Amino acid sequence: MLSPRDVIRLEPGAVVMLDQTRLPRERVDRRCETVGALVEAIRSLAIRGAPALGVAGAMGMALAAERSRAADIDGLRRELELSRAALAGSRPTAVNLGWALAEAQRVVDAASDPDRLRADLRELAERVHREEEERCRAMGEHGAQLLPRGARVLTHCNAGALATGGYGSALGVVRAAFERDPSLHVWVDETRPLLQGARLTAWELAEDGIPHTLIADVAAGQLFARGPVDAGVFGADRLPRDGGAAHKVGSYTLSGRARAHAGPLYVVPPTAPDAPPA
Amino acid sequence: MLSPRDVIRLEPGAVVMLDQTRLPRERVDRRCETVGALVEAIRSLAIRGAPALGVAGAMGMALAAERSRAADIDGLRRELELSRAALAGSRPTAVNLGWALAEAQRVVDAASDPDRLRADLRELAERVHREEEERCRAMGEHGAQLLPRGARVLTHCNAGALATGGYGSALGVVRAAFERDPSLHVWVDETRPLLQGARLTAWELAEDGIPHTLIADVAAGQLFARGPVDAGVFGADRLPRDGGAAHKVGSYTLSGRARAHAGPLYVVPPTAPDAPPA
Repeated sequence: MLSPRDVIRLEPGAVVMLDQTRLPRERVDRRCETVGALVEAIRSLAIRGAPALGVAGAMGMALAAERSRAADIDGLRRELELSRAALAGSRPTAVNLGWALAEAQRVVDAASDPDRLRADLRELAERVHREEEERCRAMGEHGAQLLPRGARVLTHCNAGALATGGYGSALGVVRAAFERDPSLHVWVDETRPLLQGARLTAWELAEDGIPHTLIADVAAGQLFARGPVDAGVFGADRLPRDGGAAHKVGSYTLSGRARAHAGPLYVVPPTAPDAPPA
Repeated sequence: MLSPRDVIRLEPGAVVMLDQTRLPRERVDRRCETVGALVEAIRSLAIRGAPALGVAGAMGMALAAERSRAADIDGLRRELELSRAALAGSRPTAVNLGWALAEAQRVVDAASDPDRLRADLRELAERVHREEEERCRAMGEHGAQLLPRGARVLTHCNAGALATGGYGSALGVVRAAFERDPSLHVWVDETRPLLQGARLTAWELAEDGIPHTLIADVAAGQLFARGPVDAGVFGADRLPRDGGAAHKVGSYTLSGRARAHAGPLYVVPPTAPDAPPA
C-alpha cells in the first residue's frame, strides 16, 4: 500500500511527490524546490485530489518559509503572502487547499520570530498530512460497515491514497472493507476525459491486490440494472448546503441510474475539518 | 458529404472501403481482393455498422463469384457456400449482414448459369447499397420533422454514412435536419471504449460543416438535466420484440437520464427491410 510519504513529503528544500501524470506507466518522484514549481505541479495534475492538495498547500507554505532569506518577521510575512496567493490560485476548486492555506495564514499571523515561524509551518504541514490520513482511516472504517459481505463496489474517478495523501476517502472505504473481506470486488470507472480511474484507481487497487475490473463509465448504469453492483462509493469535491454533492463529471448521470435501480450510492466527502460550505 | 461509393464500393476484382480504423487521422482506402481479406476487414472494424456490413456482405458474395474459376453452376455454388459461411461468421451480431447473405443465397439457389449468377450477385450488391441509402434518406426526412428549430441533438456511437454505406440512419436524421436548419447543433458522445463518436461521427460532421461539440459519454446526463439538449437520436443494432432496443454500451444509462428529464430519445433502427426480429 502507498504510504502517505510515498504520495507527498516535505524534504529539506523541496516538496517531493509521486508524479501522478506518469502513472501507471512509471513510478517516479517529482521534486519541487520552489513554490513556483509546486504551483506548476498542481496545475499539471502531477498531484490532484482536494485533500492531497491541502497537504501540498501546507507543505508549500513551509517550503516558502524555509527558502526565504528574510531575516525579520515582516519581510518573511510579505514573501509568504505572495506564496499563499500563488498556491491559492493553482486550483481554486480544491476546498482543502483553501482550508490549509487559511490554517497556515493563522500560523503566520500569530508569529513573531522568523525561525520559529519556519518550524511552525513545517509542523503544520506534517500535522495536516497526518490528520488527513487519520480521517481517511476513520471514514474508511465507518463506510466499510455499510457494505455487505462479498460487496461489489463501483468507484468513479480517484479518491484514493493519491488523492488524499494517504489511504483514501472513497477508496479508504474499499480498503477498510477489503481488510475484513477479501471477496470484495471493485468495478472501476475509467473516468473520462482524464482517466483517473483507469490510470490511478486501478493502479492503486492492483498495488494492493484488491480484485477489480475496469469499465467504460457509461456501462455502469447497466451494472446497477442487472444487479452485479451492490453499492457505488464516490468521493466528492464539495457537499453544498442544498444537500447535493459536487464530484467528477458523470457522477450525476450514474447517481441517477443508481437511484432508478435502488442501488445505494455513498458519497465520501473531502475531509477539511472545518472548511466552510461552498 | 461522403458518397456511398466513398464508404464502400465493388471494383473489378476487389471490394474497396474507406478504412475506418485509420480515421480521423488519414483518409485511406482498403482494398480487399479476396473474401478472406474482406472478412479480416470486417473483424478489424475497418468497416462496421450493421447496414454497411449488409452492403459489404452482398459485395463479398459478388466478389467471391467473380474470382471463382468454377465453370459449372454446382462448382460455383459450392465455393459460394464457403464464402457465405465465412462472411456470416465475421460479425454475427450485424442483422443486415445476415439479411444480405440470405438475399444472396436466394439468388444462388435460383441460378442455373455461372456467368448469369455472377452478374446477378453484382446487381444484388448494387441494389442493396442503393436501397440502403434510399432508406436512410427516407428515415432522415421523417426523423428531421420530429426536431424543433435550432435543435440541439445528442448522438451516441456512429450511425452515420460510415455505418450504413451512405447518408446514415441516426446521423441521416441530423443531416436532413441540418439541410433545412443550419442552426442545429450536435452533442457528440465520444463513445468509449472504441471512440466511434470521437473518431467517426465528429469527423463526418466536420466534413459536412455541421456544428458539433464532442463530450465525454457520461456528461450527457447533465445535458438532459440542464436543458441544452432537445433530443437524443441514437442508432440501434436491433429492435427486439419486447419493445426495447439493442445499441452500443451506454445507451441504457443515457436513455434513463433522458427519461428522467423528459427529454425525447429517438432510436433509428437498422434498415434490413425484412430481417426477422432477434
